[in-house]
Amino acid sequence: MAVPASCRPSLSGAKKWAGTYVPCREAAAWAGGRRRRRALRHRGGQCWAWGSPVPEPPMPGSSLEPQERSMESAAVPQELPPDCGVHELFGYVGIEAVLEQMKVKTMKMGFEFNIMVVGQSGLGKSTMVNTLFKSKVSRKASQPGQEERIPKTVQLQSVTHVIEEKGVKMKLTVTDTPGFGDQINNENCWDPIIKYINEQYERYLREEILITRKRKIPDSRVHGCVYFIPPTGHWLRPLDLEFMRRLSKIVNVVPVIAKADTLTLEEREEFKQRIQRDLKAHAISVYPQEDFDEDPDDRLLNDRIREKIPFAVVGADQEHQVNGKRVLGRKTKWGIIEVENPAHCEFPMLRDLLIRSHLQDLKDITHNVHYESYRVRRLNESNRPAPSSNNGLPGRDEDGDESNL
Amino acid sequence: MAVPASCRPSLSGAKKWAGTYVPCREAAAWAGGRRRRRALRHRGGQCWAWGSPVPEPPMPGSSLEPQERSMESAAVPQELPPDCGVHELFGYVGIEAVLEQMKVKTMKMGFEFNIMVVGQSGLGKSTMVNTLFKSKVSRKASQPGQEERIPKTVQLQSVTHVIEEKGVKMKLTVTDTPGFGDQINNENCWDPIIKYINEQYERYLREEILITRKRKIPDSRVHGCVYFIPPTGHWLRPLDLEFMRRLSKIVNVVPVIAKADTLTLEEREEFKQRIQRDLKAHAISVYPQEDFDEDPDDRLLNDRIREKIPFAVVGADQEHQVNGKRVLGRKTKWGIIEVENPAHCEFPMLRDLLIRSHLQDLKDITHNVHYESYRVRRLNESNRPAPSSNNGLPGRDEDGDESNL
Repeated sequence: MAVPASCRPSLSGAKKWAGTYVPCREAAAWAGGRRRRRALRHRGGQCWAWGSPVPEPPMPGSSLEPQERSMESAAVPQELPPDCGVHELFGYVGIEAVLEQMKVKTMKMGFEFNIMVVGQSGLGKSTMVNTLFKSKVSRKASQPGQEERIPKTVQLQSVTHVIEEKGVKMKLTVTDTPGFGDQINNENCWDPIIKYINEQYERYLREEILITRKRKIPDSRVHGCVYFIPPTGHWLRPLDLEFMRRLSKIVNVVPVIAKADTLTLEEREEFKQRIQRDLKAHAISVYPQEDFDEDPDDRLLNDRIREKIPFAVVGADQEHQVNGKRVLGRKTKWGIIEVENPAHCEFPMLRDLLIRSHLQDLKDITHNVHYESYRVRRLNESNRPAPSSNNGLPGRDEDGDESNL
Repeated sequence: MAVPASCRPSLSGAKKWAGTYVPCREAAAWAGGRRRRRALRHRGGQCWAWGSPVPEPPMPGSSLEPQERSMESAAVPQELPPDCGVHELFGYVGIEAVLEQMKVKTMKMGFEFNIMVVGQSGLGKSTMVNTLFKSKVSRKASQPGQEERIPKTVQLQSVTHVIEEKGVKMKLTVTDTPGFGDQINNENCWDPIIKYINEQYERYLREEILITRKRKIPDSRVHGCVYFIPPTGHWLRPLDLEFMRRLSKIVNVVPVIAKADTLTLEEREEFKQRIQRDLKAHAISVYPQEDFDEDPDDRLLNDRIREKIPFAVVGADQEHQVNGKRVLGRKTKWGIIEVENPAHCEFPMLRDLLIRSHLQDLKDITHNVHYESYRVRRLNESNRPAPSSNNGLPGRDEDGDESNL
């Protein structure tokens, strides 16, 4: 079989770029090791054998650290030979090809992303969603020529679309909550929302604990809840506080100051400071939550985001000409507010947070934190009534905290 | 805040590269959609807001397909406006940034990879593992100056190392099985191996069903079992058949013809054909299993691999000079066998399969197929004794096939 020379693993100069083999008995180097984020740049070579994409061969810095010896019941420990100081690796192994393999799998499978928008009517929720996803993902409540009233109770409306960009498919579900905060008495108007969010956790849990389960569990869990604060310029209202206090415990809440074009820059800044103080005073932890920062890099990045929260946003689904360019914006007598211009509003920050920098994190926190909390609560609940057996999974027969087979 | 123009989302010429919005009520486009594998090449721009890596802005082909409307108990369906033919997207959303986000997370977390080597002594198992991972990952049974005997029973020895390349950390566990096939009577010599593999599934399952569980379950499951066939040039022996028949049901078995330098090219080819016929006749499905090909691309790639299985390999952990280059090989009076030269042996195919093209797939098949089978078996088993309650999770009180909360 003819193999192009460029694809053949070259061993010339192995010594030059070979990594080191350092025995270290501490597990410090493994998982949770604090590493600086680095953007990987592979130029994507080929496996010689079947031509599937694989990253570039040799570079400096391969290293192999013997780190622990796992001992199984039937296993015999194996000691390193006494002379195992520092050995050089013979060359490039290619383990980082796993990144490319994961990418290909993700592109094939696509992924799900579910967001919810909450806030009283007229704050531009649908327009914001359309601005985020660059199309009519969400329908406005009042279309021209259509008569529609504010519903008497909070209703939930979900729309699912598939968005594809550069070969990556996202199944986006946007859940709208018309009627929230629009009544004379808004007591408990968060209840249908909490119910919906929990129902999605329940649905996932029921699938997860099936004996015969799907290879990929359909994910309808809400990964982010964007809460629209009216641009009063004053304080958070009791409804805002009550909603965020309750919801931030079960979902990633991303508060925004809606229709920020009604505030001057000074008013906006002042309002934002007050909201931050209010949230702190009421111990409300919105996304990205400090508790879930995974390392100092995360903390650094997220601290910068936390300073800016809630983002003062403006949405628009109309294009206008500005200096010969088409921009998304709102045209007024005194100028055009360009929503994607960071000097005009903080919409780009919201978009970056939700899509370009934290999308996977929103999904991870939902899965690892919010869903897990629901699961623990739910399983403990299921186990409470009749503590009799040793089964930790949903049923009526557990007295322990943990399950046993 | 000053934002470099290159980072600012440009909306100029939006029409030119805007994607389309095609209402399609069939779910055909979603998950499982057969797509050709494409190597993504981002050049990695920046989020303007916090400078984290994000792929390049606009390119042709963004599209948005409304696809289904999820209906929740409390949700009201939302119909598309009647005029929703084909709308253009306003521009670039940035969803494929999720690939970069996943990559960063994988690099931070590292990943686990566990392989097992099985075969009688003297077939070069340790040398092969060392050749694969370019270092002394596995210790040879007989070191010079050390006396060591073949154990009287099959013993399992696991060694764990951390290998790092280009910022990606892999926690590699190699499990060796000295004593396998070395006795006068080798009946049931697969038992300790099956026991070990199942123990790892059990360990994962026990962790998974805990009420309070780890964020990332430690994975000691065997992702691939490399089985060394002695280079007899004749047929598979009953022990080979029996082992692969049993093991291929619970783990990814990758058979190799060991020490292939003892066979001429004709003998090698002939032997390989016979082994393929034997495996087929005994309905033994080694990795990559036809049943688990996910799409036509997978099938095409894997068919080419299946034609070549079992790979005829030669291992070496010594370097030699060939044409001024250092190569890994075995020096004989009649020449140097270069193990990484595909004209000399099929070691590069084994390396590509295990590491550069199918590592993630080995992990996925282990998790989605072998572990799931174990889980189903185990939960059904647990439920058999006392069918009385409606709990499908491990316990003694289930009569249904599926669990209920």
